[in-house]
Amino acid sequence: MRFTAQQIASFLNGEIIGNADVEVDSFSKIEEGRPHSLTFLSNPKYTPHIYETKADIVLVNNDFFAEKEISATLIKVPDAYAALTLLLRMVNDIVNPPREGIERPCHIAESAKTGDNVYIGAFAYLGENCQIGDNVQIYPQTYIGNNVKIGDNTIIYAGAKIYKDCVIGQNCIIHSGAVVGADGFGFSPQEGVYHKIPQLGNVVLEDDVEVGANTTIDRAVMGSTIVRKGVKLDNLIQIAHNCEIGSNTVMAAQAGIAGSTKIGESCVLGGQVGIGGHITIGSKTQIGAQSGIISNTKPGSEVMGSPAIPLKSFFKSSIIMPKLPDMYRQIGMLEKEIEELKKQLNSDKDRDEGLSCK
Amino acid sequence: MRFTAQQIASFLNGEIIGNADVEVDSFSKIEEGRPHSLTFLSNPKYTPHIYETKADIVLVNNDFFAEKEISATLIKVPDAYAALTLLLRMVNDIVNPPREGIERPCHIAESAKTGDNVYIGAFAYLGENCQIGDNVQIYPQTYIGNNVKIGDNTIIYAGAKIYKDCVIGQNCIIHSGAVVGADGFGFSPQEGVYHKIPQLGNVVLEDDVEVGANTTIDRAVMGSTIVRKGVKLDNLIQIAHNCEIGSNTVMAAQAGIAGSTKIGESCVLGGQVGIGGHITIGSKTQIGAQSGIISNTKPGSEVMGSPAIPLKSFFKSSIIMPKLPDMYRQIGMLEKEIEELKKQLNSDKDRDEGLSCK
Amino acid sequence: MRFTAQQIASFLNGEIIGNADVEVDSFSKIEEGRPHSLTFLSNPKYTPHIYETKADIVLVNNDFFAEKEISATLIKVPDAYAALTLLLRMVNDIVNPPREGIERPCHIAESAKTGDNVYIGAFAYLGENCQIGDNVQIYPQTYIGNNVKIGDNTIIYAGAKIYKDCVIGQNCIIHSGAVVGADGFGFSPQEGVYHKIPQLGNVVLEDDVEVGANTTIDRAVMGSTIVRKGVKLDNLIQIAHNCEIGSNTVMAAQAGIAGSTKIGESCVLGGQVGIGGHITIGSKTQIGAQSGIISNTKPGSEVMGSPAIPLKSFFKSSIIMPKLPDMYRQIGMLEKEIEELKKQLNSDKDRDEGLSCK
Repeated sequence: MRFTAQQIASFLNGEIIGNADVEVDSFSKIEEGRPHSLTFLSNPKYTPHIYETKADIVLVNNDFFAEKEISATLIKVPDAYAALTLLLRMVNDIVNPPREGIERPCHIAESAKTGDNVYIGAFAYLGENCQIGDNVQIYPQTYIGNNVKIGDNTIIYAGAKIYKDCVIGQNCIIHSGAVVGADGFGFSPQEGVYHKIPQLGNVVLEDDVEVGANTTIDRAVMGSTIVRKGVKLDNLIQIAHNCEIGSNTVMAAQAGIAGSTKIGESCVLGGQVGIGGHITIGSKTQIGAQSGIISNTKPGSEVMGSPAIPLKSFFKSSIIMPKLPDMYRQIGMLEKEIEELKKQLNSDKDRDEGLSCK
Repeated sequence: MRFTAQQIASFLNGEIIGNADVEVDSFSKIEEGRPHSLTFLSNPKYTPHIYETKADIVLVNNDFFAEKEISATLIKVPDAYAALTLLLRMVNDIVNPPREGIERPCHIAESAKTGDNVYIGAFAYLGENCQIGDNVQIYPQTYIGNNVKIGDNTIIYAGAKIYKDCVIGQNCIIHSGAVVGADGFGFSPQEGVYHKIPQLGNVVLEDDVEVGANTTIDRAVMGSTIVRKGVKLDNLIQIAHNCEIGSNTVMAAQAGIAGSTKIGESCVLGGQVGIGGHITIGSKTQIGAQSGIISNTKPGSEVMGSPAIPLKSFFKSSIIMPKLPDMYRQIGMLEKEIEELKKQLNSDKDRDEGLSCK
Repeated sequence: MRFTAQQIASFLNGEIIGNADVEVDSFSKIEEGRPHSLTFLSNPKYTPHIYETKADIVLVNNDFFAEKEISATLIKVPDAYAALTLLLRMVNDIVNPPREGIERPCHIAESAKTGDNVYIGAFAYLGENCQIGDNVQIYPQTYIGNNVKIGDNTIIYAGAKIYKDCVIGQNCIIHSGAVVGADGFGFSPQEGVYHKIPQLGNVVLEDDVEVGANTTIDRAVMGSTIVRKGVKLDNLIQIAHNCEIGSNTVMAAQAGIAGSTKIGESCVLGGQVGIGGHITIGSKTQIGAQSGIISNTKPGSEVMGSPAIPLKSFFKSSIIMPKLPDMYRQIGMLEKEIEELKKQLNSDKDRDEGLSCK
């Protein structure tokens, strides 16, 4: 699959500077540019590389002007990064066409209903009364429990597991190893022994949700654990029972959300963040990596630390951390000095008083 | 599936206040109560909701007395939460009856032995010399290695993997994606290269253990990694080789225990806790979320932080954290002031001495 | 499988002290030694156990001399721990011989190529144009996507998932539930909605890499996510897109590395470490458990904390942490005392000045 600079510029409505006939067959980073590859320049930090890159085509912003000669062909566009994304999608549509057809053996319960143009991979399992939408791709070794509904155009990658009764929206992507709908962690302790509380709810993923590899989303004890439209979850994340994750919220890998917590819309959680149970996170909250949240946050908060405090405060305090031993010593010395000063002052006073009695 | 207040009160030996004929078909939370649903009131914090809930039945404690009119039918019981759990179990028995029978294709080694009333799902794999107890449910796509023993009534959900030689007790539940018995992380470094130390032990789960989705429990290098009776492990937990987890200990999601560590009975570990290797955690230790444990704890300890300190001390210190920059500045100022005072005192003294010499 | 002390001593070129005919059939720890088992003494801390162990054979270092009678047969070798590793490997070769043959049903695309002596377990899936080397063992329920290459002698345990286009070296071990090549977490936000950036790169694991259970390694957006020769990854680790992990680096469980970060050779990462994106970690860096890395580290650094600081500094500061509330109070008291001293000094001065005016 090769494209000329001319073809790409036409596709992107861009302006060519240099050889319009040069061909590329792959992408590369500007600092690792290879012949026959296309790259892009968006972050000004990388500008020096454009004069040395061996890539044959570079997408640049309209406001880029070369200060020296550049061997690559440039294609000027309003937003080089957005243009790259468009190109990646175009190539993706070519190299990753949707799969279709049913590979055997697979297990499809008689009561299961499947839409048009579905792919069902070998060794996949579809339980009773499943409803699978049009153009859904269910990769091999996937488990779809009884009564599960999956919306149109959703992709379930190899080996993902969806427990019974869960509902998956349209245009979702669920990666390998993800587990949706396992029992919430609910027990009632009686005389030191933990008795299981049956988890009779389900999980609902709305449209356009992406669930990373080996991420787990537990079913509710009653009602639903809900992941709203447009949420993106990275790998190895834990969402406990009865949580609700607001639309367009994104979480980096290994974050963990305890039970019944509600996260607002458009929040951003860093990697390895932990949020306690029964907490409300305001919309547009930004939480730094590895933070621990033990109380509600207001909309628009930026917090970090464990327990989390305002972001700026966290970094200011962090800078002081290595100085703690010195501070401790200094306080001890100050105490001694003050003790000394007091003594001195008192003895001076005594003497002065002596003086004044003279 | 519908029940009248009368039927539920009989089942729970409770006292009805209100319409005994009202019917419910589901559960709801008191603050989100829906018509035809049953809810409960246990935590007094939620009491105001009982006067407004649209649920048709509310389980309440015997000592509850209404201050205003309530539209729902009440059922009085000694412990509303325990009664709810009983109801959930009763319903669970109806909606989740044990599976039975063998779905084809599946792989059952000729030397494998299976008990009465087992379920073996499609694409499950049972290795040589497996021993599977009565009423065991092995869901689709599960892997049971050679020589594995599984006790009566245990459930292994879709896609869980049990490596060879491991032993699973009775009444255990292992969720999807859990991996029991993968190699411990053991290498001997020789001139900068890590050589694998074969991991020849196994994993033993005693009775009544629950293992969450995508949790991993590594096999011992020699002997056994042991998880004692009644332990409950949430999702995405790591238990390293040669650990021993005491009976009735519970761990929240994403906790990680390094090699050869022994955790006592009835401990509670918060989410994302990390415990170092070769450590002993006393029984009934409580460890706050995200804590890091690098030394032994005494029975009954409550600790938090990384590295962990006593819980109360942790919270007291955490409150001070945001004040560190101010403290740092204050110490600097105090030093200057003391320096100033010293100078002043000395100059006074000089003058005084001058005075006294007069 | 039983061996006499004589046989073992011959295999290890060791010297026997005691009964050469005693037989053992298993390994045990010296403090839990059982009859008919072999154990070892390497760490002097365990020396007292050798006089009481019930193990029948103990491997000891050449420089060990008994201070009392020992009932076990001793075998003296230059390095008892290394000798034990040799024995474990010898036993491993016997009890875990390589699997061979193809179990049915499995899915092997017609265009897939497999080498000599391969094992392909039941319900495994090999996509189009796969290239599988000699002696490769692909356990049941494994997914190997299109165009994947797997080098000689590699073992892929049950249920691991390798997405399309990835390259796995020779002598690698990939444990159950590991996911290699899922999409990197890349989105371009437009008006609050996250649009997926196709991830068109792949993952390359070089030779001798071990990947723990349920670990995830994401494919690059362009180019490759690279794990160099001899890297050992424990369970539940996250490696994001476009990372590069240097040769012979080891990571403990639940570590997470954000996108485009480069880790040097021979680094050691503790459990639950988090490293931010676009960071460079110098070779031989040691990172303590639960640390958070937000800036580059120099080769040979030892760091800990979140954010991480030099290891010694971290522990010194940690010791001060519980003293913070006292320090805070002390500073307040010092301020008051200084204020008091100032007043006193000023009043003395006034008086003195009065005096001097006399």
